[in-house]
Amino acid sequence: MAEIDLNSDLGESLGAWRMGDDEAMLAVVSSANVACGFHAGDPAGILSTLKAARANGVTVGAHVSYPDLTGFGRRNMDVASADLVADIIYQIGALKGLAAAAGTEVRYVKPHGALYNTIAHDARQGNDVITAILEIDPSLVLVGLAGAPLLTLAQERGLRVVAEAFADRAYTPQGALVSRREKGAVLHDPKAVAQRMLRLVQEGVVEAIDGSLTRVQADSICVHGDSPGAVDMARALRTQLEQAGVSIRPFAAAAPLQSA
Amino acid sequence: MAEIDLNSDLGESLGAWRMGDDEAMLAVVSSANVACGFHAGDPAGILSTLKAARANGVTVGAHVSYPDLTGFGRRNMDVASADLVADIIYQIGALKGLAAAAGTEVRYVKPHGALYNTIAHDARQGNDVITAILEIDPSLVLVGLAGAPLLTLAQERGLRVVAEAFADRAYTPQGALVSRREKGAVLHDPKAVAQRMLRLVQEGVVEAIDGSLTRVQADSICVHGDSPGAVDMARALRTQLEQAGVSIRPFAAAAPLQSA
Amino acid sequence: MAEIDLNSDLGESLGAWRMGDDEAMLAVVSSANVACGFHAGDPAGILSTLKAARANGVTVGAHVSYPDLTGFGRRNMDVASADLVADIIYQIGALKGLAAAAGTEVRYVKPHGALYNTIAHDARQGNDVITAILEIDPSLVLVGLAGAPLLTLAQERGLRVVAEAFADRAYTPQGALVSRREKGAVLHDPKAVAQRMLRLVQEGVVEAIDGSLTRVQADSICVHGDSPGAVDMARALRTQLEQAGVSIRPFAAAAPLQSA
Amino acid sequence: MAEIDLNSDLGESLGAWRMGDDEAMLAVVSSANVACGFHAGDPAGILSTLKAARANGVTVGAHVSYPDLTGFGRRNMDVASADLVADIIYQIGALKGLAAAAGTEVRYVKPHGALYNTIAHDARQGNDVITAILEIDPSLVLVGLAGAPLLTLAQERGLRVVAEAFADRAYTPQGALVSRREKGAVLHDPKAVAQRMLRLVQEGVVEAIDGSLTRVQADSICVHGDSPGAVDMARALRTQLEQAGVSIRPFAAAAPLQSA
Repeated sequence: MAEIDLNSDLGESLGAWRMGDDEAMLAVVSSANVACGFHAGDPAGILSTLKAARANGVTVGAHVSYPDLTGFGRRNMDVASADLVADIIYQIGALKGLAAAAGTEVRYVKPHGALYNTIAHDARQGNDVITAILEIDPSLVLVGLAGAPLLTLAQERGLRVVAEAFADRAYTPQGALVSRREKGAVLHDPKAVAQRMLRLVQEGVVEAIDGSLTRVQADSICVHGDSPGAVDMARALRTQLEQAGVSIRPFAAAAPLQSA
Repeated sequence: MAEIDLNSDLGESLGAWRMGDDEAMLAVVSSANVACGFHAGDPAGILSTLKAARANGVTVGAHVSYPDLTGFGRRNMDVASADLVADIIYQIGALKGLAAAAGTEVRYVKPHGALYNTIAHDARQGNDVITAILEIDPSLVLVGLAGAPLLTLAQERGLRVVAEAFADRAYTPQGALVSRREKGAVLHDPKAVAQRMLRLVQEGVVEAIDGSLTRVQADSICVHGDSPGAVDMARALRTQLEQAGVSIRPFAAAAPLQSA
Repeated sequence: MAEIDLNSDLGESLGAWRMGDDEAMLAVVSSANVACGFHAGDPAGILSTLKAARANGVTVGAHVSYPDLTGFGRRNMDVASADLVADIIYQIGALKGLAAAAGTEVRYVKPHGALYNTIAHDARQGNDVITAILEIDPSLVLVGLAGAPLLTLAQERGLRVVAEAFADRAYTPQGALVSRREKGAVLHDPKAVAQRMLRLVQEGVVEAIDGSLTRVQADSICVHGDSPGAVDMARALRTQLEQAGVSIRPFAAAAPLQSA
Repeated sequence: MAEIDLNSDLGESLGAWRMGDDEAMLAVVSSANVACGFHAGDPAGILSTLKAARANGVTVGAHVSYPDLTGFGRRNMDVASADLVADIIYQIGALKGLAAAAGTEVRYVKPHGALYNTIAHDARQGNDVITAILEIDPSLVLVGLAGAPLLTLAQERGLRVVAEAFADRAYTPQGALVSRREKGAVLHDPKAVAQRMLRLVQEGVVEAIDGSLTRVQADSICVHGDSPGAVDMARALRTQLEQAGVSIRPFAAAAPLQSA
């Protein structure tokens, strides 16, 4: 029977500022990328999200970022390797601590925003993130963009990796994401999104922006939850996948260690 | 044979700003209270201090604080319990992560600055710190002011505690610290300091500011290293203790787990 | 003809986090307490709120705070005088700079959150805020709680002050605010709120929580806009005041300098 | 009689962390680039530096930066224009406020670190900085790297500009700075530095790293003060310039407005 992981960014509130509806999304996804305080999230809010993830049986990953609250981690920063390695370890460690207090565990690392995009192709920073993970806990899985050189790099250095696709993004004929600056880059029709992802799960292909089919190998699908519309789309995706007989569950490498 | 632990605050540099001489102090102390980024310390600097601590065989503790870089954690803050508990867990977790990367372990928690002073007597915030430690890792030891109600509170809740004395501070006849605002509160003569601490180790008493003897039961002595003069005083203290046959080593509860 | 000022806290979004509906509130109030980056607000968001304030003909005040983004400035902090004075000047200066760029001017200062509550009665910190205002621009008005000793203190030192009442708060028979921790402290019925404030404007009295009448002398009324319900209540208040013939306009001391 | 301005980065301490010897440098330079809190400096420390600058008759400029305390503003950040413009205005405004409280005025803007290097050639970010200055106070002078396209850009948009040379840096035959990554990029001999700068002032040329002479037109010389050796070099430079009959004074455009 086919199965797939759904992941989403959670724990992104900050103090008095709310972002996203973590409770709603935890009923939809199987994996939660939880903010670690560098682009979003304060300790008390993160802890509360982790407790809710545990209560919902959702696997937890560290959503690590450049140190940039005001820019929400979306701005490229030229961080030196010694700093980047230590920044990533610090964030994973902090989340591990909060996860322990919440009775759960951090199973994977998914870089956020500008860091995510940069390391998809930048080997220097990519290696820094890999080094950080290897140094704090080599059993952690690295989640990255399907097709990105980063994943090969990480595997060569001994990390388990999981490739992800984006539910609401258009793809080029080469299997890359269409840049957000281009027309049609973001899809808004929940039905179309669900059907594309069903095909991805069942056939390993996505219809590219030019109508051709492109191969996208992914074990996880990223869905957004930062607006009521986004939550609805994620919910519709889950429903349609399940109706087609696809089981929603954490990617294998992130399953509880005892059952791995 | 008599023995005592010497502890000091380390890892307090921040980015381009230097503070203290960690290398020098790691040759003097047996326990390092390492900053966790809330009052001082950035991840790369903390990691480097942790590696040096390991190389010097010095035990590591988490020097947790209110979130206040500009005030160096020295300003009282009325932090709600949910926030304080999560802030402490976050800091300990981050340090644990960096310690793992450095090949060492966090063995104890010593609150810093205003938090240290407040929880010595404030049961609400004291209980928050205790809760945080119990939730992330109940094997961690809490280091606090000798004679403070906090230590009793922590023991009652199942934590191991270690009481500390301050090498360069005057004591009241009741065994409390003389407030820094009062004359004579801080001692400056390395010789006198060393002799006082030797007596503390050997007899469990300190000469109070009025000349009387007061009982101070401590398993660790806090020394400062934030100025060349402070480093010299710490070094002199260690030398004199060792010459008197006192062995300098981490307090028992913080010893490597395998030998506990 | 009777008139009154309506003020509200604006510019409180931070980076990717939205808070309040500034556009909606700028159509309701005559004075905008604009965040200065210490408890809320980032420069670009503040600038955009200032431009909207100017476009709406709304007077601008500096909503200064303790430095505490995570706590939204709601936590008491024991800030030393030298720091508090400089922190306040820094915030007012930053807002003045952004106001100049937006084609408007900062006319008053209204402390926020914990600082507001503390200085209402704490003379040390109150004097620090007053000193800061006198040092950067003695033509600025200080807005504070009606009846608070702070206002007398400020007047004695030469500052112009404006007292404010809170639209949705219950009052004690002595004219103080009922603590939020007590039942009935916050009013939720827009109609009742509007009628209370109309009476305040017309007769200078408010019905206290015990049913007695208490004198509250205020030249400004604080309304909230941090939720759709709050915006509705503020809008209803303005409508009812205007229907009763009360004109909504900035308090006199804050009027444009040329017409002062 | 020949004259030149000497400028240095000041106000860079942060809370408990000291950096540089502002008092010593204020006896050497004629212009102080004062940190604004984004890469260094806290309000109380900045205010104290501004008071000392005034007492020493030293002109004040805003040393604006990317928002990056941990990286000391030395890391490139891809800040969007709306944010960069507002960040610069915020910093200049804050410094203007503190300067008013100190009885002095901000006369110029000198970007710091990565921002300085980026805008020397990046027209998008350069224009953002120029826009910010024009919007808050078009009478401010922009200080930048001699020969950089930025200065032409700023002049075309109506700003007064001042070009600066670096006392301790080697130059290429084309008049650009030799990259710090290359050998010989930084000069360490105070005597040689002083003679180079004397020639710059008197003849408008510097001996390039290949021995050729290159034209460098500068109205200000940047000297460092972040170590005792740096202070000594700056002092030696001033002495030698004065002995050669060169007067050290703020560049003309930054002179007190009444005498301009």
